[in-house]
Amino acid sequence: MVETPGLPLAGLRIVELGHYIAAPFATRLLADLGAEVIKVEPPEGDPVRGWGSAVDGNAVWFSVHGRNKLSVTLDLKAPADREKLATLCARADGLVENFRPGYLERIGLGPAVLHAANTRLVIARISGYGQDGPYRDKPAFGAIGEAMGGLRHLTANPGQVDFPPPRCGVSISDDLAGMYAALALVSACWGIKGDPDARGRIIDVDLVSSVFSLSEGMLPEYGLFGWVRQPQGAAIKTAAPTNTYPCADGKWLCIAGNSDLIFRRLMTAIGAPAMAAEPRFATNTLRCENVAELDAAIAAWTRTRPAAQAEAVLEAAEVPCSRLYDIADCAADPHFRARSLVMEVEDPLLGRVLHPAAPFRFDGIPPEAMVRWTGPKAGAHNAQVFGDTP
Amino acid sequence: MVETPGLPLAGLRIVELGHYIAAPFATRLLADLGAEVIKVEPPEGDPVRGWGSAVDGNAVWFSVHGRNKLSVTLDLKAPADREKLATLCARADGLVENFRPGYLERIGLGPAVLHAANTRLVIARISGYGQDGPYRDKPAFGAIGEAMGGLRHLTANPGQVDFPPPRCGVSISDDLAGMYAALALVSACWGIKGDPDARGRIIDVDLVSSVFSLSEGMLPEYGLFGWVRQPQGAAIKTAAPTNTYPCADGKWLCIAGNSDLIFRRLMTAIGAPAMAAEPRFATNTLRCENVAELDAAIAAWTRTRPAAQAEAVLEAAEVPCSRLYDIADCAADPHFRARSLVMEVEDPLLGRVLHPAAPFRFDGIPPEAMVRWTGPKAGAHNAQVFGDTP
Repeated sequence: MVETPGLPLAGLRIVELGHYIAAPFATRLLADLGAEVIKVEPPEGDPVRGWGSAVDGNAVWFSVHGRNKLSVTLDLKAPADREKLATLCARADGLVENFRPGYLERIGLGPAVLHAANTRLVIARISGYGQDGPYRDKPAFGAIGEAMGGLRHLTANPGQVDFPPPRCGVSISDDLAGMYAALALVSACWGIKGDPDARGRIIDVDLVSSVFSLSEGMLPEYGLFGWVRQPQGAAIKTAAPTNTYPCADGKWLCIAGNSDLIFRRLMTAIGAPAMAAEPRFATNTLRCENVAELDAAIAAWTRTRPAAQAEAVLEAAEVPCSRLYDIADCAADPHFRARSLVMEVEDPLLGRVLHPAAPFRFDGIPPEAMVRWTGPKAGAHNAQVFGDTP
Repeated sequence: MVETPGLPLAGLRIVELGHYIAAPFATRLLADLGAEVIKVEPPEGDPVRGWGSAVDGNAVWFSVHGRNKLSVTLDLKAPADREKLATLCARADGLVENFRPGYLERIGLGPAVLHAANTRLVIARISGYGQDGPYRDKPAFGAIGEAMGGLRHLTANPGQVDFPPPRCGVSISDDLAGMYAALALVSACWGIKGDPDARGRIIDVDLVSSVFSLSEGMLPEYGLFGWVRQPQGAAIKTAAPTNTYPCADGKWLCIAGNSDLIFRRLMTAIGAPAMAAEPRFATNTLRCENVAELDAAIAAWTRTRPAAQAEAVLEAAEVPCSRLYDIADCAADPHFRARSLVMEVEDPLLGRVLHPAAPFRFDGIPPEAMVRWTGPKAGAHNAQVFGDTP
């Protein structure tokens, strides 16, 4: 066990009753920030350990998903193990759980019971639809959180009927809910710290609300004017040219060329300086009206060269752009390496692995020091936590 | 000014030096949680006030984006106003800023200067690429954060060449960075609360890292095996049938029908119970191998009816599914209304408007009470904050 001095949440004790993504992601962030996180798993382990690839039965994703946490195993069907869980919660600052609403109450460990033993416990509950309301008992699926929260409607190309709007490609609704649960939990802990009379809280976070929280001005605009935002594909209706363009190698290049100065540099770089001088492209408003011609001219140029080469030409012309990075691009990028955003870590279960840095950094703490250890085996800390003989 | 008792961050004083989305979104979350947020704007206001629709010059989005905040205006080119800003920071707990790296230092208000006046200040800096590294000085665009962070590569349909991978449809990279900045800032404040010797921190959050943090197990899998995750459209390679299907009204229906029991219910509901009984669809693994046939059969059924009607049939059969909600669907949904996820709020500048609830709720605090006031005019609180005559 390595400890890193100066992490902001050092001394905060969190119990995770999580499985799959949302609650474990919340506590991974808290663990990266220095909290002591005890992950409670069933004897067979969190089922997320069965996802994706594995080496000798050790899930590769879990190296990251479980990092900086302690793992203990308990069988919540056994009264003695429920008692152990109650003891963990009695001496913790916070609990993060993502069981179906009502489950904790059914096993006799609802908030009322936990608060009777520890009035200061902050309990963060994550569910698909929330702890109340007509959909509370529906099964939670990340994809349905994306759909019902209003995000997937927008992740689409207008006029496209041959393919469905794609998923975000990652577990976005679980991730967002986990981030909000972490923020709300630490906020509640800040609120009671140092106040001997303060009491813990019960926090309710759900996938649908978390996705819906990103709706910008759509809801007041709908209420006032009846406007319903429609998908815009890779373009932005109010800025031109900014879009994603096909390249000779089948890859795509995202270009943000809509300011007047950048637009001129862009058109010069692609060998069409005369277009930049035409009055009907003189302002962003005019370019938005005539965007189809611009997009066609830019795509005609990008189609003639591989994405990396087109990117290099535009970079040299100081036109903001980026290939759509895949994980190999991320791993190879000099900025990612210079910032230790991609780092090599020794995992006792897997060998040398690559880890992403924590998404926040603090002065005086190197990003490498924020990965104190990699995801452990289920139950690896039973002896340490419970004082059992292993 | 309305105050709501019991909000967790009551008493936390935050200065926002933000514009557009990332920093203002961070502080909106902190303000929803009860912090006192003073938003510092240029005399002409945050340029985000010019985005989207407006009523009498008041931006509709800003009703939500600026809610629960105080707004003051300062001209940072004027020494007297920089002095006022320094005074605000001297008595604050935290500062959130999203200028280009180096700007605060250039106007004489870098972290060293701010910490000299207030050793406990927690400074959260948000930028496109971070405060160091070779790309630090590049201009930040949300779309490029999505592209370089590895998300947009995945938001695509495999084999699709006629349309580019669409944007996420919202400012996802700014939102994620704002959420991480808020979490890191509150964590740092928790860390020093009650410790008279503790010192403030400097936090570095950027759009690219924030997006990249959602890469799940992709990075260790790439490092160990050279695997590069490719887009999967609306499907999931390891679960079938789960996809998004076209309906008669041009809308789409997301269906998660991959568990054995649900699969049988689904096939019965669409009038194909015989398919559910065929051995080659007996397990999820077999269904993944033969997914094209299943998807075709399901789509043949969904194409014959409008999305809402297909959804109702599957709901009745207890098959998890959801139309791709647009903002009108969200506003009309009984669960959204029952949970006050959509609520009517009186905005003195706009009249009755709809606001989304905060994405976290706390026992004893109704969601309505978390919207204390709507986004104010730029400079509305100059007199209150600076004691000036307005």
